[in-house]
Amino acid sequence: MKIITLDEIKEILPDLDLIPAIEAGFVAYSAGQAVVPPVGELLLEEGEVHIKYGYIRQDDYYVIKIASGFYDNPNFGLPSSNGLMLLFSQKTGQLVSILLDEGYLTDLRTAVAGAIAAKYLAPQSVKCIGIVGSGIQARQQLMMLRQVVDCRKVLAWSLDKDHLELYRDDMIAQGFQVQIAPDTGSMMARCDLIVTCTPAATPLLAAADLRPGIHITAVGSDTPHKQEVEAAILGDADLIVADSIAQCLVRGEIFQALRANQIDLEDISELGQIIAGNVPGRTSDQQITIADLTGVAVQDIGITVAVYEAAMKKRQSKI
Amino acid sequence: MKIITLDEIKEILPDLDLIPAIEAGFVAYSAGQAVVPPVGELLLEEGEVHIKYGYIRQDDYYVIKIASGFYDNPNFGLPSSNGLMLLFSQKTGQLVSILLDEGYLTDLRTAVAGAIAAKYLAPQSVKCIGIVGSGIQARQQLMMLRQVVDCRKVLAWSLDKDHLELYRDDMIAQGFQVQIAPDTGSMMARCDLIVTCTPAATPLLAAADLRPGIHITAVGSDTPHKQEVEAAILGDADLIVADSIAQCLVRGEIFQALRANQIDLEDISELGQIIAGNVPGRTSDQQITIADLTGVAVQDIGITVAVYEAAMKKRQSKI
Repeated sequence: MKIITLDEIKEILPDLDLIPAIEAGFVAYSAGQAVVPPVGELLLEEGEVHIKYGYIRQDDYYVIKIASGFYDNPNFGLPSSNGLMLLFSQKTGQLVSILLDEGYLTDLRTAVAGAIAAKYLAPQSVKCIGIVGSGIQARQQLMMLRQVVDCRKVLAWSLDKDHLELYRDDMIAQGFQVQIAPDTGSMMARCDLIVTCTPAATPLLAAADLRPGIHITAVGSDTPHKQEVEAAILGDADLIVADSIAQCLVRGEIFQALRANQIDLEDISELGQIIAGNVPGRTSDQQITIADLTGVAVQDIGITVAVYEAAMKKRQSKI
Repeated sequence: MKIITLDEIKEILPDLDLIPAIEAGFVAYSAGQAVVPPVGELLLEEGEVHIKYGYIRQDDYYVIKIASGFYDNPNFGLPSSNGLMLLFSQKTGQLVSILLDEGYLTDLRTAVAGAIAAKYLAPQSVKCIGIVGSGIQARQQLMMLRQVVDCRKVLAWSLDKDHLELYRDDMIAQGFQVQIAPDTGSMMARCDLIVTCTPAATPLLAAADLRPGIHITAVGSDTPHKQEVEAAILGDADLIVADSIAQCLVRGEIFQALRANQIDLEDISELGQIIAGNVPGRTSDQQITIADLTGVAVQDIGITVAVYEAAMKKRQSKI
């Protein structure tokens, strides 16, 4: 049994292309080849814990991921997110590896899904990226977009202005040309690829600001209560894509738009169908597209297996 | 974060009295102080995985246990059971310890529950112990009974006669006087403390053989389909005890007896109530008592915390 620490994971990641691994997970999921039981949840006084687990049929492994959020942790000098990934043999149940990623791979696999959505749904030539939010996911999403989009011009907006300035400075240091948007309306006027990554419970993007050629990836809403995008935006979209249709029926932006009668179930495609080529992605630069990402265990499976295999290869090469 | 291997666990266990730790868990559970969400389950082609998790309010930790059964494993020279225990801080969500117990502590905490049931429910003077089954649990239950019962005379019976002879020899080597019973009827005629630990789907103990003064602990049935004890035995019992009433309503011997209209819900007491002294246990040597143990996450919590704390103490003492 191999224990892989966060330091080792971070050493491996720069050379690892996670997009194919997680694309394969989405394809398997949409093809009905993934077994992902309902998420386990433990609510505590100071935080919450989610257990996501499952496997892809005919694969070698199954994965159990534990991810926690303890929101007072920053008061103790600790990150609020934490967690680990466990990799087991599908044939014998033996524990193959423990990835002590401290929640890092959960942030990363979410950003990889955003990059995949952009790869298939953003206009061919992105002129400006819009980022709504200023936290870890706002950083990770933008960094990961470099793998699929040439554009380095960014307009950023966040409710938290101090965090937003820090975000701008950090992302400039990473080679982006970042400006702060006065509001999301002006962002929607200038950006054609917008990623929302906030815990908002009332919409931050308004349908009135929508214009042809925009793609929006909504990452923040993963509960029945959160909502970043006005439901009418989904109503106006030419293509609505869920990471998991089953999950988006009960949480996230699609859930809100269905409830508001802005869309119908048959309007929704699944990301894995588009990756597989069974459903067309964006077909013109004038289309409005939206991807609603609520997070699926196949992402955890894909990233865990990819990191484990890369770590073993790297260890071998050092012998 | 501390990793504790099976070797270290086995080194600690002889000096560790697990009964108080697991009794405290049952008491907390029956007092409504334990948070134990539904068990997570992952079914694979070659096996199954269960995720049990929870915590006791006001405690320092929460525990996630992963236990698997892969039934072809012996063909590859591997044990069919496997697993690990994860201990986290209830305050911060940080991973405190990984107990790589390979399923060993699950077997053990089940046996400790059997000893606790015997402590409160067996007649004061046990003349002969009956063991139904010849597997790991048949061994662990008998070994653990030494802590609560003086009797070393054993009658053993199992469907698998080869395993049964091996069992007899192994348990004689552990200091018991073991004879093989020709059938469970003769066991019930001579034994006053009987533990059933088989995966039987049709009852092995018959109500016709029941006599005053017997205590039965049924350990094997943990699904809606398994049944070791004829439902009428519960109907004839003076005291019926569940480790978890909620769980015994949907699986195990109590579920079968309720379904057969042999007992009513109000006939059932909970082990934690008896340990706490809120409900009397056995009050005379003539009573017939039965405990139905389906396994509760508080046992996992109790054993994980106890083993972790003992391991840390032992490591300290070695410095």
